[in-house]
Amino acid sequence: MTKRAIKVGNSIIGGGSRITIQSMTNTPTSNVDATTKQIDRLIKAGCDIIRLAVCSNEEVEACKKYIAFSKVPLVADIQFDYKLAVMCSDIGFGKVRINPGNIGSEKGVRELVSACKANSTPIRIGVNGGSLENGLNENGAKALAESALKNVAMLNKFGFYDIVISAKSSDVRIMVDANRIISKECDYPLHLGVTESGDISDGTVKSAIGIGSLLLDGIGDTIRVSLSSDPVDEVSAARSILRAVGLDKNYCEVISCPTCSRCGYDLFEVVRQVKELVSDINVPLKVAVMGCVVNGPGEAKNADCGVAGGGKGKAVLFSRGKIIKTVTKDEILPELSKLISSLSLEKKIERTD
Amino acid sequence: MTKRAIKVGNSIIGGGSRITIQSMTNTPTSNVDATTKQIDRLIKAGCDIIRLAVCSNEEVEACKKYIAFSKVPLVADIQFDYKLAVMCSDIGFGKVRINPGNIGSEKGVRELVSACKANSTPIRIGVNGGSLENGLNENGAKALAESALKNVAMLNKFGFYDIVISAKSSDVRIMVDANRIISKECDYPLHLGVTESGDISDGTVKSAIGIGSLLLDGIGDTIRVSLSSDPVDEVSAARSILRAVGLDKNYCEVISCPTCSRCGYDLFEVVRQVKELVSDINVPLKVAVMGCVVNGPGEAKNADCGVAGGGKGKAVLFSRGKIIKTVTKDEILPELSKLISSLSLEKKIERTD
Repeated sequence: MTKRAIKVGNSIIGGGSRITIQSMTNTPTSNVDATTKQIDRLIKAGCDIIRLAVCSNEEVEACKKYIAFSKVPLVADIQFDYKLAVMCSDIGFGKVRINPGNIGSEKGVRELVSACKANSTPIRIGVNGGSLENGLNENGAKALAESALKNVAMLNKFGFYDIVISAKSSDVRIMVDANRIISKECDYPLHLGVTESGDISDGTVKSAIGIGSLLLDGIGDTIRVSLSSDPVDEVSAARSILRAVGLDKNYCEVISCPTCSRCGYDLFEVVRQVKELVSDINVPLKVAVMGCVVNGPGEAKNADCGVAGGGKGKAVLFSRGKIIKTVTKDEILPELSKLISSLSLEKKIERTD
Repeated sequence: MTKRAIKVGNSIIGGGSRITIQSMTNTPTSNVDATTKQIDRLIKAGCDIIRLAVCSNEEVEACKKYIAFSKVPLVADIQFDYKLAVMCSDIGFGKVRINPGNIGSEKGVRELVSACKANSTPIRIGVNGGSLENGLNENGAKALAESALKNVAMLNKFGFYDIVISAKSSDVRIMVDANRIISKECDYPLHLGVTESGDISDGTVKSAIGIGSLLLDGIGDTIRVSLSSDPVDEVSAARSILRAVGLDKNYCEVISCPTCSRCGYDLFEVVRQVKELVSDINVPLKVAVMGCVVNGPGEAKNADCGVAGGGKGKAVLFSRGKIIKTVTKDEILPELSKLISSLSLEKKIERTD
């Protein structure tokens, strides 16, 4: 079902809005210089919403500066201490994320709700497989979904509906199944992520499967890829996922074959150079780099243009499935570059028409 | 539905067997030295079934050597020329893959079927989004599925049922939807892959989503990750996908948090070292490397053991959710290493019991 729209600063989560990309700073929140720089790098990388852990009054103070300077909404991540959450709402954070498994009593939640109502601060109920409340089995998608929904019900009891939900697990299957359950049960937007997913290689695969398969089924409103790596890598991985499932089309996709015995030139190197060449293009364009005629112009006829090995040191350039020129290996890159520039200009003009 | 079991050399595809990993050589098939080495590297990397493009009689001759030497089944990839496919069946390839979009007339297919029947060679019907037969729209999952099923029907008409199906596209959504349709319609095992998926970064994300989301739903019997990269990278990516969806449990999983302001030690470096340390473990084990107590022993209580930052230059080691020792930063790796060795030994003994 379509989810309700939740306003987080100048951004909207849900309501059919564009899927936003989130990440989290890992510098000490009290270190204003380092954290300011990291927020800046994340924004430049395309991060839409940035979360910070807030653990003390001193960190709340530092956050006032980040809120004043940041062009994108900031989210306070609070564990244990609801009073910090109240302060974060009061100083103008775009959203507050609590982990119901450790936020404590209903009394604290009630105080938080009344601050968030007054300040129009949404709350993310963020349940994690490993830190469910007592009495709920930490294994299993159903338990994870139940925990999230139970906490939503508690906020609803206090008349609060400005809610985003996340149900994360380091187990991809549990994360996927939990979100499928929650998505059926309520209309609060879902923040997707696989938690503790590991380093950039394992974590990217786990996150791609977990987040990607839900997005393919229309589930998910904002995403965060968690990696034990520079947070900027999380933003890149998130963007790759959105592109792979067709939810971000304004870029130049480079499709390329894995090569086989039939390939007659150094395709991997051409792919590398073409990717560099097109990295700044922000209109929908598809370039194919193919090893041979078998997988060449025909196989790639959905591409706007491309190159295919043609045998005997030659290659063919094609545009929309038609061969337009035969070139030598050395001419591949300059000729393809001209073709890409002209097509990308056409698309830009189309778009502004 | 459970798929029928298809025997490919000494390997089984379908019938509830383990999901096999496939890759393809990209050395010239006629270059015996280079191709032998690559087959060897692929086997060492864990590739279960290896495909080679066969384009000429000379290459058929070279393949006799590979078939004699390879410990894993080899598959002949044939485009255009059914006579080559017949020869490949005759010389003992474990399977023949044809692209019905270009294999030509029914007469050729009939001859191929009679050779494959005589030699018990299964055929993979491999349809690709870009090279569907005339008359079928190249876009769209339905067209892709229809093309595969139409070609299966043709083989069935000739009394041939020893079939594996693949329906690939460079569009993840089309690939997923096409396989969902085919899986409902017949009981032939499915070979999953996203074709022309690009370089290792884009291609891994696309393949993880496409292959991974189908596997999560119980669809798929053998997989091939296509990357414009060393084929050995395809095997690693395939294995990561199987592990991420829980279909390969005999390894040591390293879960680790993305760190945040709360993290008190160089977690990324510890993750790197732990991953190196556990890379040869082939029993199911889970090690957690966590930044702080919030996401520490509790959050990672499903892990067999792990470490969490404890503040003030200290860290805690835990095993099955219980803290067992406080250590200094320098002691993390040696102490964790001892813990992992002892737990992995326990698991090995359990397994041989």
